[in-house]
Amino acid sequence: MFDKILQINLLLDFYGQLLTDKQQNILQLYYNDDLSLMEIAEQLGISRQAVYDTMKRTEKILYDYEEKLGLLTKFVYSQDRIQEIVKISCNIEFGLTNNIFSNDEILSEVNKIIKISKDILEK
Amino acid sequence: MFDKILQINLLLDFYGQLLTDKQQNILQLYYNDDLSLMEIAEQLGISRQAVYDTMKRTEKILYDYEEKLGLLTKFVYSQDRIQEIVKISCNIEFGLTNNIFSNDEILSEVNKIIKISKDILEK
Repeated sequence: MFDKILQINLLLDFYGQLLTDKQQNILQLYYNDDLSLMEIAEQLGISRQAVYDTMKRTEKILYDYEEKLGLLTKFVYSQDRIQEIVKISCNIEFGLTNNIFSNDEILSEVNKIIKISKDILEK
Repeated sequence: MFDKILQINLLLDFYGQLLTDKQQNILQLYYNDDLSLMEIAEQLGISRQAVYDTMKRTEKILYDYEEKLGLLTKFVYSQDRIQEIVKISCNIEFGLTNNIFSNDEILSEVNKIIKISKDILEK
């Protein structure tokens, strides 16, 4: 369930502006503000079933956008690779500060950064 | 004009899948394959005016997607920053290979990479 909450929130970040205000609102109340279907229904003055139906329909719209455009997948890939660059850079920093790396070792780490960067650029 | 061709091609890469086949086709024939409006009209068996109208309407749809989602802008920002990481890394590589950098100088360059990476991650 946590994965789904995270996923829907990310999809909302990416494609939310393509939804109607009502669709955005219901998904945000449920996935962001953690309200129950009944609480959302009361707040909006509609039936619990209507909330549920709109939610399922809207989730499908978001998944369809992602299936067509795949922008979230690309974003997650790129973020993961940049995290790797940070990790390698911190490793070099540690090695330099403590004087435990040879030039060749640093060079090898720097080449990893160049490779990862080019992977992202060419993706 | 070159800027516009590049921009429309990038917008097509990002949002093309949200267009109809006909809309995609006309934009690709014009901006990618460099056909004239008249040539496209003949190829598709429609009037030159219909090609022009569809093209203008479709361009507007693409610009509207970008105005709402801004994903191309984010992408270009991120690519530019990653290019900077490559440049700094190549600089470190050059310095190490030629033994002209002190540890402190390398450290300062590595810190720039960490800063840029974190900027991208937080954007």
